Amino acid sequence: MSWFYFADLAGVAVFAVAGTLLAFRKEMDGFGAIVLASVTAIGGGTTRDLILHQPVFWVYDPVYFAAIFAAIIFTAVWLRFKAYIPLNQLLYADALGLAIFTVIGAEKALQLELSPVIAVIMGTMTAVFGGMLRDVLARDIPMILKKDLYATTTIAGGIVFVLIYPWHEQVALLVSIMTTTCLRFAAIRFQWSLPVLKKKKI
Amino acid sequence: MSWFYFADLAGVAVFAVAGTLLAFRKEMDGFGAIVLASVTAIGGGTTRDLILHQPVFWVYDPVYFAAIFAAIIFTAVWLRFKAYIPLNQLLYADALGLAIFTVIGAEKALQLELSPVIAVIMGTMTAVFGGMLRDVLARDIPMILKKDLYATTTIAGGIVFVLIYPWHEQVALLVSIMTTTCLRFAAIRFQWSLPVLKKKKI
Amino acid sequence: MSWFYFADLAGVAVFAVAGTLLAFRKEMDGFGAIVLASVTAIGGGTTRDLILHQPVFWVYDPVYFAAIFAAIIFTAVWLRFKAYIPLNQLLYADALGLAIFTVIGAEKALQLELSPVIAVIMGTMTAVFGGMLRDVLARDIPMILKKDLYATTTIAGGIVFVLIYPWHEQVALLVSIMTTTCLRFAAIRFQWSLPVLKKKKI
Repeated sequence: MSWFYFADLAGVAVFAVAGTLLAFRKEMDGFGAIVLASVTAIGGGTTRDLILHQPVFWVYDPVYFAAIFAAIIFTAVWLRFKAYIPLNQLLYADALGLAIFTVIGAEKALQLELSPVIAVIMGTMTAVFGGMLRDVLARDIPMILKKDLYATTTIAGGIVFVLIYPWHEQVALLVSIMTTTCLRFAAIRFQWSLPVLKKKKI
Repeated sequence: MSWFYFADLAGVAVFAVAGTLLAFRKEMDGFGAIVLASVTAIGGGTTRDLILHQPVFWVYDPVYFAAIFAAIIFTAVWLRFKAYIPLNQLLYADALGLAIFTVIGAEKALQLELSPVIAVIMGTMTAVFGGMLRDVLARDIPMILKKDLYATTTIAGGIVFVLIYPWHEQVALLVSIMTTTCLRFAAIRFQWSLPVLKKKKI
Repeated sequence: MSWFYFADLAGVAVFAVAGTLLAFRKEMDGFGAIVLASVTAIGGGTTRDLILHQPVFWVYDPVYFAAIFAAIIFTAVWLRFKAYIPLNQLLYADALGLAIFTVIGAEKALQLELSPVIAVIMGTMTAVFGGMLRDVLARDIPMILKKDLYATTTIAGGIVFVLIYPWHEQVALLVSIMTTTCLRFAAIRFQWSLPVLKKKKI
């Protein structure tokens, strides 16, 4: 599944850009950018592999770090020469990364013959834990715990994947990626959000 | 040890309620509640299993997530219809969860023939790491690092367990659970606290 | 390699002192000191072992905890009887710990026949992740992400190590430790720092 490997690397690079931008905003130095970019890009997959008791994917494939470093350098150069950040385009690229990471996580769990519930959880974890860890390190309250349908779209993509997977893997991949991406695009476009828990003084 | 499995699930549910309440207070949405409830309930046991190089317990038993979801829904419904939170009862239920998690962690280490010191550490980690991770995610300074005898009671329960275990497992279970629970009840009742390190300007 | 085991324990003790001092400054109680000291001292090595899918080093060797407890007690006693903290000496001791942890992490990766890039990453992770996790727990923004050449010196030490290692292990150990230590001493002495990413409003 060669196209998928490149899709994965693209997702890693997009997430690394997001991490670099946060490091930049927090006025961190070069090492801070490397850590935040790496945690954002591979933190979710690392957590998934640890919990599934599998070898961590990037330990045997340093290409992932090449993608991360390329993303950091690209971002640093961009910021030096351009006066703006194409936030909107980034959000759409991020949606694609989210969709790809979801199916990677869910598929890995299903291949280990784990239950569909765990597969959906692993898909979501792969997609959102990296950003969550990044926010914790940068001492933001994780965006994911507060904002709109971000996590919900990956849960939906994960559920679609585990439902179709027993029938046809490639179809499951494509439909799941389209589901997550479209939902996320719509959430960005129309600024959907879930109702927060009813506010009441505790 | 069937009664013990149910005790474990009850502990998970009580910890999940605590996590949900924190999500509520921080005005997080539904996904934030799921993450905080899960981290509180199974974060300690997950860390323990990772460090002991064992399969993570909930990956092969989705019943734990059923307990967590039930706890979240119960809490959300309760908050919608009741004007108060029975904080005191919760504290006592939490003490029981703490006691159960302690023996589970300590026993797992002893069954792997690790040293008693590591067993006590694993008992404590199982009992308190979930709450610590939750506080980090919610961007509180972890309560456990600042407040009263919370962790000390689980250390005491762990020590009692490893002392009695070589002699009789069931007795060790019961005496350890009673030790942790009673100490914790007393700490709540009489508001005990450890002396903080001597304050001096650094 | 017996001298090296003692060097490792000395590094653990120095890092534990740093963790205890932070707990002290944050007015935590005894358990908070134990957690912060332990996380600082063995958090980096634990993360490395988890990611390399190896048994965690301290689980089978409780001597590490003896070193941590000795460091905590020593620090608490010192603080009770002395009016000052020898911050400068501590910084130099910390530099040595950093250098030792770097080669331990890098060597472990090379012995598993991983690529040199991963070995450098593992050396850095062993050296700096403990302090990073400590700062997250104490709700500081991790110093490592913001300040001077701290992480850069361990990256340099790691690169030197993987370059010399194929040729001669003991020489690699010594040259790497000297590289990290000297760079760090110079960074402390002359207050070097890396340029932070160019500040611009995002």
